[in-house]
Amino acid sequence: MSGGRAERILELSEADAVVIMNSREPFLDPSFWYVSQVSGGLFESCAAVLRPGGTELIVSSMEAEEAEGASGTLRIYSNSEELDDLLHDALDGTSVIGVNYSRITLAGAERLRKAAGGAELKDAGKAIDAVRSIKDEDELERIGRACEIASRVAEELPAIIRRGMSEQQAAAEIDSLLRKEGSEGTPFNTIVAFGQNAAKPHHSPGPKILEDGMAVLCDFGASYRRYCSDLTRTMFAGEPREEERRAYEAVAMAQEQGVLAMNPGERASEPDRIARGIIDAAGFAGRFIHSFGHELGLSVHEGGVMSARSQHLLQEGMVSSAEPGIYIPGSFGVRIEDTVHIGPEGPRRLTSFDRSLTIL
Amino acid sequence: MSGGRAERILELSEADAVVIMNSREPFLDPSFWYVSQVSGGLFESCAAVLRPGGTELIVSSMEAEEAEGASGTLRIYSNSEELDDLLHDALDGTSVIGVNYSRITLAGAERLRKAAGGAELKDAGKAIDAVRSIKDEDELERIGRACEIASRVAEELPAIIRRGMSEQQAAAEIDSLLRKEGSEGTPFNTIVAFGQNAAKPHHSPGPKILEDGMAVLCDFGASYRRYCSDLTRTMFAGEPREEERRAYEAVAMAQEQGVLAMNPGERASEPDRIARGIIDAAGFAGRFIHSFGHELGLSVHEGGVMSARSQHLLQEGMVSSAEPGIYIPGSFGVRIEDTVHIGPEGPRRLTSFDRSLTIL
Repeated sequence: MSGGRAERILELSEADAVVIMNSREPFLDPSFWYVSQVSGGLFESCAAVLRPGGTELIVSSMEAEEAEGASGTLRIYSNSEELDDLLHDALDGTSVIGVNYSRITLAGAERLRKAAGGAELKDAGKAIDAVRSIKDEDELERIGRACEIASRVAEELPAIIRRGMSEQQAAAEIDSLLRKEGSEGTPFNTIVAFGQNAAKPHHSPGPKILEDGMAVLCDFGASYRRYCSDLTRTMFAGEPREEERRAYEAVAMAQEQGVLAMNPGERASEPDRIARGIIDAAGFAGRFIHSFGHELGLSVHEGGVMSARSQHLLQEGMVSSAEPGIYIPGSFGVRIEDTVHIGPEGPRRLTSFDRSLTIL
Repeated sequence: MSGGRAERILELSEADAVVIMNSREPFLDPSFWYVSQVSGGLFESCAAVLRPGGTELIVSSMEAEEAEGASGTLRIYSNSEELDDLLHDALDGTSVIGVNYSRITLAGAERLRKAAGGAELKDAGKAIDAVRSIKDEDELERIGRACEIASRVAEELPAIIRRGMSEQQAAAEIDSLLRKEGSEGTPFNTIVAFGQNAAKPHHSPGPKILEDGMAVLCDFGASYRRYCSDLTRTMFAGEPREEERRAYEAVAMAQEQGVLAMNPGERASEPDRIARGIIDAAGFAGRFIHSFGHELGLSVHEGGVMSARSQHLLQEGMVSSAEPGIYIPGSFGVRIEDTVHIGPEGPRRLTSFDRSLTIL
């Protein structure tokens, strides 16, 4: 890995320039922070223009102070005509502009086309993802801190989750603990799901009260200097039913074995294949309804996933969730998730908590 | 106002169909929830197809349970080929498809173009915004609840902000109180800015410690059944300097007079003109570096803004922030913000807190 972040993106994208463009919140491209290395600010309607001669950060006057010390030359605008002019100046003479098709709005792309006067747009998403997938030391340090914070909260869950509490109350307690432990807000909405709600992978915490015999699924993360962690722990309020116990053990084993396959050079489909095989063999075929994991960093979902359909290879420096699950609609769900770094020696769990079956 | 939400959007957009399409978090279009009237779920890579015959919700199998009871016919897919097939089926025979250019990614738009086989895309953003701008009773009820929650927290600020506390600690306390008062997470990252950090409108809370003589700016909101509130209160730790006091009084008066102009039929530029005039006259010309307000609802920023350049008229049923500010780089900042409903009788503040100068 040589050169700065912007240089590597430019090189891989094979474009004359790469433009990272933010719209209004929440349509902001985390690559803006990756390239500028700023850790604060909102930077709505701001852009980073990467060119071989260097990076220009086109920033609204409102964000000028936040952008001080950023990696790149600052250009400040006060209204949208000035923004268009600065884009035009920065892109003058380029014929192929790389943009991230998945992180720019159609309106942003149209604006860019106009400002660049007929230049061709090209999807630089894969180039950007490829560079961002391989975390550098500063990034691993930040992700590691975010993982430590989430792990401390995971260890406290048996002490804070009580019968009679609502999902919303439990989520509030988790969020409060995350902040107390040093998280900057929460990188995604904390999920707490009781009983049959745990069968919904993206359940929003509601008024449901924890009663004896229910599964308790908690999925949350911390944020440290803009970098994320992601962790899920499933427990039971009282003795689980036989089917729940079997599901828990299957998911725990699927996660264990899947993580062990997260080696540099391994196919990204392999951890999913292994985990799915274990879950199927345990009698839960068709109940693991998502992929084994997703990369994370500045975003809680970024880069590639580890699914049956993944075609790429795992590489040293990647950070990914490892989160098999079993979901029985109308009954219960189990998911166990860690954030894992693919190190030179193989998988390294950055989050940690007691993964043996926990009864509250 | 007649017909359902989808019907009104279709009518205004003058397209054969309108497609609302989610990408991966956070590139999700709140209009998906507006049209489907679901209040949970994540619905990544899901779409709502609005056609004269009715609305189809194309939803991944993972979200099928969350989508139960939604307004629209459910179509479930398990992989991306099935998603493309369902889009193709739903759009068969349409020649003009409305999409929200500001809320669809370029990748989403390209996918739609392919699935629809040559149909023309058209920006339906203004039509969607126009419908969503006028809040119905259910929406006003939810926004009102979100405002009450934020107001209760604003009233508690003088009790919880203490010298020796860091911005991050103060933000954590605010977030925790918001959840305790019933907020579902926080609709945007809470801003706490001390002293010269208050001069940065979008400051991220950091390790800065509150000391005597500093301004204390807190900007936060609550979320209730997906609807937001937005509120800013500025206070001072100890007696403010003369310039700070003058700035505070100017902002308070600018907000007061600006809000009074938020009447149905008034030009949307008028509150900004009035507030800016007051701030300029007080000797702070050029220090109010953003617009007077922005509409909010399902998103904390949506629809139109009230700025000097606004061309539209205010209408009954709109809900907007009213938030003039003065920012002196390297020194301090003041902002006072309420969420305001434009009712039939004129402006109605949905948030409330003591706006007189508060010394901690």
